[in-house]
Amino acid sequence: MNPHLSMGPGREFDVIRALLAQWGDAAVGVGDDAAVLDVPAGSRLVVSTDTSLEEVHFRRLWLSAEEIAWRAVQAAASDLAAMGATPLGMVIAITIPDAWRSELSALGAGIAEAARATALPIVGGDTTRGAQLALTVTVLGHATQPLSRCGARAGDTLYVTGQLGGPAAALSALRGGSPVAAAHRARFARPEARLHAGEWLAAQGASAAIDISDGLAGDAAHLAAASDVHAVLQLESIPCMEGIAPLVALASGEEYELLIAASRIDVAAFTRATGLSLTAVGHLDAAVHEAGGTVRVLHHGVPVSRPTTFDHFAQ
Amino acid sequence: MNPHLSMGPGREFDVIRALLAQWGDAAVGVGDDAAVLDVPAGSRLVVSTDTSLEEVHFRRLWLSAEEIAWRAVQAAASDLAAMGATPLGMVIAITIPDAWRSELSALGAGIAEAARATALPIVGGDTTRGAQLALTVTVLGHATQPLSRCGARAGDTLYVTGQLGGPAAALSALRGGSPVAAAHRARFARPEARLHAGEWLAAQGASAAIDISDGLAGDAAHLAAASDVHAVLQLESIPCMEGIAPLVALASGEEYELLIAASRIDVAAFTRATGLSLTAVGHLDAAVHEAGGTVRVLHHGVPVSRPTTFDHFAQ
Repeated sequence: MNPHLSMGPGREFDVIRALLAQWGDAAVGVGDDAAVLDVPAGSRLVVSTDTSLEEVHFRRLWLSAEEIAWRAVQAAASDLAAMGATPLGMVIAITIPDAWRSELSALGAGIAEAARATALPIVGGDTTRGAQLALTVTVLGHATQPLSRCGARAGDTLYVTGQLGGPAAALSALRGGSPVAAAHRARFARPEARLHAGEWLAAQGASAAIDISDGLAGDAAHLAAASDVHAVLQLESIPCMEGIAPLVALASGEEYELLIAASRIDVAAFTRATGLSLTAVGHLDAAVHEAGGTVRVLHHGVPVSRPTTFDHFAQ
Repeated sequence: MNPHLSMGPGREFDVIRALLAQWGDAAVGVGDDAAVLDVPAGSRLVVSTDTSLEEVHFRRLWLSAEEIAWRAVQAAASDLAAMGATPLGMVIAITIPDAWRSELSALGAGIAEAARATALPIVGGDTTRGAQLALTVTVLGHATQPLSRCGARAGDTLYVTGQLGGPAAALSALRGGSPVAAAHRARFARPEARLHAGEWLAAQGASAAIDISDGLAGDAAHLAAASDVHAVLQLESIPCMEGIAPLVALASGEEYELLIAASRIDVAAFTRATGLSLTAVGHLDAAVHEAGGTVRVLHHGVPVSRPTTFDHFAQ
């Protein structure tokens, strides 16, 4: 049984047919005007959209087509992880330049691999010719109590999953033309959305979460602003990959780890459940004299200046 | 009360803040990692994604920024209409070149106007700098019994909403540099997704539907292929705008009207409910000797050759 609707003739549909043939059971029910999904009774729908664009989010020389597609899906899925949501499916809009047409199958392979790894079947999409390769992935999930950025309270501890700094180190080496450590490159090229971690932390009563795609310091500011509190980060506590300085780890973007606020999390139980580390890196203070959203970074109690974060429009 | 989460500093967030300030109540709850929506109990989630790209789907000289944004939203919403779905909300990914930054407010106005007209509040999005203006709109709706392309049966009548040919005539005039009739231009520049019509037709027992964004003939082929039947269209029955030849109407894309298969629809009741015309334009035959999906066009019973349809990858 073909799980997809038949389509009429045309080369645009040939592109879609080729992708569907390749995707196998990573795609479900594609081909109608829209996809139909079921949100379990008692659960709320969680949805996020994320664009990965050539020369903005990646350069062709640095990553294979499979990796570009894998990252695009994982980056989108990371927003579901930050909400503590269970994956339902994704729709993907692909804009492909003629120069990339020979890579369609490699892109398709990366999308399918990530769809399987994240348990987000491809349920629909759109294909367009254009000047820049772009993958806009919209992810759908569900949660009984989605984990917002705005639920954090003064006094909460801040935790971060995993070890930071790999993407920053990889990007720095790639830009400078110097050798890239394999472990750093892997964190840049093959990120993994922390979906299971997000679900576990939501179930264990975390008060707020955000993924640190803009870097730990930048996203701590977003979480603090949304919750109207101030964040304090302890530089000496930041979990760094081998060879990474804490200030680099603090500003490293595209991490796709989770920053969590909670009154208390059983770190050992988290690691048993997910296989990941979870590290207390600071806490939240009440916003008394000014609106929340500031981030102070302390090194053994002494303030240090905060590194800047990546911003598409700052250049 | 600000209905959105506070965000940290950065020019990317300034862009988002400017859009949110402009959108007012056309946007709801934007600013978390993902949006949270409720699908009514007993309803299924319906989702579709659609990219509108500069130089592919529109040219800047032909349309104002407001119209470009309006069309992008309506084109996406049209897929919900074709499913008979009730609108829930949308997420929108905007890729904006520097040369378009001065038009951000006009784009935002067109998005908001279309969000209100379609009852699809903006619940989330993504902004990126890029070489081509791109709007990828993902629309979310719900339906107890979504109207598929694949439910049509041999013997069903084919109906189409509205009057066709305006977009084809407008495009032809714009490409040729000749004057554009205001009525034709309006159908090209200000399409309206037939959301209410789709819901009404689904409730009245239509067996299948598709929007005719690829043109009536092309989309009749998709519907017939999905339902494994053959389509027969009567050229003399095609509802044409004034000054449009039926063969032009048959091939006119970007119509965003609906093609419906049903054993019978009360056309007068449809018009009373929606204010739109509904015209019987043909019927479906069983696929006996070959797989379904062919379209025959007859003119008073005499076969005529089928016009071609637009295809992004055919050039």
